[in-house]
Amino acid sequence: MSTRNYVAEVIGTFWLTFAGCGSAVIAAGFPQVGIGLLGVSLAFGLTVVTMAYSIGHISGCHLNPAVTIGLAAGGRFPAGQVVPYIVAQVVGAILAAIVLYFIAVGAPGFDLAKGFASNGYGEHSPGKYGLASAFLTEVVMTMMFLFIIMGATHGKAPAGFAPLAIGLGLALIHLVSIPVTNTSVNPARSTGPALFVGGWALQQLWLFWVAPIIGGVLGGVVYRWLSGESQDQVTG
Amino acid sequence: MSTRNYVAEVIGTFWLTFAGCGSAVIAAGFPQVGIGLLGVSLAFGLTVVTMAYSIGHISGCHLNPAVTIGLAAGGRFPAGQVVPYIVAQVVGAILAAIVLYFIAVGAPGFDLAKGFASNGYGEHSPGKYGLASAFLTEVVMTMMFLFIIMGATHGKAPAGFAPLAIGLGLALIHLVSIPVTNTSVNPARSTGPALFVGGWALQQLWLFWVAPIIGGVLGGVVYRWLSGESQDQVTG
Amino acid sequence: MSTRNYVAEVIGTFWLTFAGCGSAVIAAGFPQVGIGLLGVSLAFGLTVVTMAYSIGHISGCHLNPAVTIGLAAGGRFPAGQVVPYIVAQVVGAILAAIVLYFIAVGAPGFDLAKGFASNGYGEHSPGKYGLASAFLTEVVMTMMFLFIIMGATHGKAPAGFAPLAIGLGLALIHLVSIPVTNTSVNPARSTGPALFVGGWALQQLWLFWVAPIIGGVLGGVVYRWLSGESQDQVTG
Amino acid sequence: MSTRNYVAEVIGTFWLTFAGCGSAVIAAGFPQVGIGLLGVSLAFGLTVVTMAYSIGHISGCHLNPAVTIGLAAGGRFPAGQVVPYIVAQVVGAILAAIVLYFIAVGAPGFDLAKGFASNGYGEHSPGKYGLASAFLTEVVMTMMFLFIIMGATHGKAPAGFAPLAIGLGLALIHLVSIPVTNTSVNPARSTGPALFVGGWALQQLWLFWVAPIIGGVLGGVVYRWLSGESQDQVTG
Repeated sequence: MSTRNYVAEVIGTFWLTFAGCGSAVIAAGFPQVGIGLLGVSLAFGLTVVTMAYSIGHISGCHLNPAVTIGLAAGGRFPAGQVVPYIVAQVVGAILAAIVLYFIAVGAPGFDLAKGFASNGYGEHSPGKYGLASAFLTEVVMTMMFLFIIMGATHGKAPAGFAPLAIGLGLALIHLVSIPVTNTSVNPARSTGPALFVGGWALQQLWLFWVAPIIGGVLGGVVYRWLSGESQDQVTG
Repeated sequence: MSTRNYVAEVIGTFWLTFAGCGSAVIAAGFPQVGIGLLGVSLAFGLTVVTMAYSIGHISGCHLNPAVTIGLAAGGRFPAGQVVPYIVAQVVGAILAAIVLYFIAVGAPGFDLAKGFASNGYGEHSPGKYGLASAFLTEVVMTMMFLFIIMGATHGKAPAGFAPLAIGLGLALIHLVSIPVTNTSVNPARSTGPALFVGGWALQQLWLFWVAPIIGGVLGGVVYRWLSGESQDQVTG
Repeated sequence: MSTRNYVAEVIGTFWLTFAGCGSAVIAAGFPQVGIGLLGVSLAFGLTVVTMAYSIGHISGCHLNPAVTIGLAAGGRFPAGQVVPYIVAQVVGAILAAIVLYFIAVGAPGFDLAKGFASNGYGEHSPGKYGLASAFLTEVVMTMMFLFIIMGATHGKAPAGFAPLAIGLGLALIHLVSIPVTNTSVNPARSTGPALFVGGWALQQLWLFWVAPIIGGVLGGVVYRWLSGESQDQVTG
Repeated sequence: MSTRNYVAEVIGTFWLTFAGCGSAVIAAGFPQVGIGLLGVSLAFGLTVVTMAYSIGHISGCHLNPAVTIGLAAGGRFPAGQVVPYIVAQVVGAILAAIVLYFIAVGAPGFDLAKGFASNGYGEHSPGKYGLASAFLTEVVMTMMFLFIIMGATHGKAPAGFAPLAIGLGLALIHLVSIPVTNTSVNPARSTGPALFVGGWALQQLWLFWVAPIIGGVLGGVVYRWLSGESQDQVTG
């Protein structure tokens, strides 16, 4: 792995967090013609579609600590690269929150107290879903996300379509679960906005590291067994 | 066929029912920014897109008793595997309803009496469509769904695109017919939620087994004739 | 050409008209969660995506007299097959209107006087656009539709993607022009519902034959010149 | 380069501006069922998807001065062709504004003072975003747009998918930034409508040339470094 791998992960995770959270902060609730949760879902999904076709051949385009750990658990990524990848992803997400903040403050009425696209549960869940529902949702969604990633990039899957399947999978996850947790399945994406909002967002941030990582490992392990991949098949 | 085939069908049908019905129960009617019937339609479609790229090379990714029976009628699937596939699909759909229930009850105001994404006709049709309209809709829609599946997976169709064509076909079917029956075209997807709702949902469940299966057989047979496939062409 | 070609065009145009117009009649204006013009646009587009992958290798999947004539003008389709293709397309569209009618009448409040997805101009334009705007819109839109079809199926375009490009092109055309004419660009699709609505819909039907055909010929000829295709290049 | 290259850019940029801006002017705010900012975003994106599959093999399908300059900066396009490409693109965008005007005036209540899809900042930003936010948004969005274009057309990216990735990338950019500037990232698209609206639209037009070009150059240069492309790799 070279510096270019890590820079690609920084830029890619910047894009996922900037454009995904940006669509929520800037465009979701625009009067009369706002894009709503459907538009935000597509935005998150398309960040992955666009980056996977652009940098997939450079870094693998994880953009997500839960993906990196899940792929390692699934035997597809070397364990020694997990930490530097996660560092790059968190750096990218923080840069995204900074740039998004400087754009968003240029509008009248902007207020970080509206949430800045942070993830949350209980009274900070968009639909007031409790902790248990939030935890279960993030585990199941990230598990299925890794299952899709492992499957769509399998050697027997049609070549070239994985970025579409994975990105549209992330869109689908958002279509279901924004009301529950504002949808994370990605600890880096959760960390960027939480650092700006502080308070409750930082106090609840643990869930959006723990649950997605548990789900990611489960997804990687389950698919590995299902496809009959051997223990020592590691790409990269 | 090995155990892995059936497990893949369990997981895939779990995902179709969980994420499809979940989008309806959790996100469709969210105040102001809900995803509406358009978002639910895309969600159901994307469950198939994502699973077909992930497990298509394992089990064929039917996820639907009407698809399994229709493909058998179309000469593409061995009759001896029909029953175990259907059992796996129903198990997956029931698991989906269980997990969705445990998430959904975590929100204030959740009530199974709102329907839990069950299918219905007459006074239980979203748009109050009668039995005849519901039956005709489910037959025609499933017939065309099988027609699309048979065609997009035909040897002369472009390789690799079938999951997109089929999944987007399911989205299209929902775009038209949610107001009529809440859209089934899939007996397994109908069975999961109906077991939780009980009462009318179970009483009307027969239609969502009978009509999709009739439609599926029609679609398989019509396409088989149209493409000039011989009687003995069976894959799998 | 065999009977199977014509049957494929009947079924394909049935699907385009049934699901496209059906989404408008049944789901567009559903209270609170209706799919709106965006959903109808996607529905029309996806009818073409799904059929092009399913029957493109059988009949070429025109589903539209303006496409058949435009492709003939563009040197891609034999003139002798134009009339039987158009007959098949009109038959398919009429069948679609019949089936859609029998479904739609099953809902309380259904009324053909609401338009049944017919195309119109002046006081029958959704946005009250006049005759000149309607004519110009249908010519330009069909011209660009044929331009896209000619281009995406050109030998130098990426193989396999034409159904996506063409179907999404039809969705795009609807995204712009439903308020002007309810969007035709397809004389067969216009004819089916007009036969049920009668009166003004039949009186205005001429425009939705003349303008799309003019546009289709223009698109075919312009692209043929642009790509430098010779006069005698005829496929099929 | 021959005349056909330039004509292709004229027609392609006509389509981008006509259908993209047309969806905003005609359909975005249609009562009850309008397509909203989500529909406009998809419309802009699909103009690129459709044209890239149709004329990508003729002219490369830039349709945008910032793309042409960014690709030159990224070592993918000959500097000597930059000016004629930009001239063709501006001509196409002006033709689009003319045709769109003649359609739009056919509706009761049409008024150029509503903006005619022009781009703006400050009091002419849809969400009243100030100059700094607008400038930063256009730079970052165009930078990432070129990054996606450079990446998806790289030799190691999956062949054939670039039009999807790039078009969906433009849709994504609109999903986020319409409230900020009405989204340009394309000086030609901005120029067409501004010539009709005059006044403020022409006074603010400078930003929608300067910022996208800066962003385009940055994106081209950053990706070139990231992928390790040599200085002298020029296609076309």
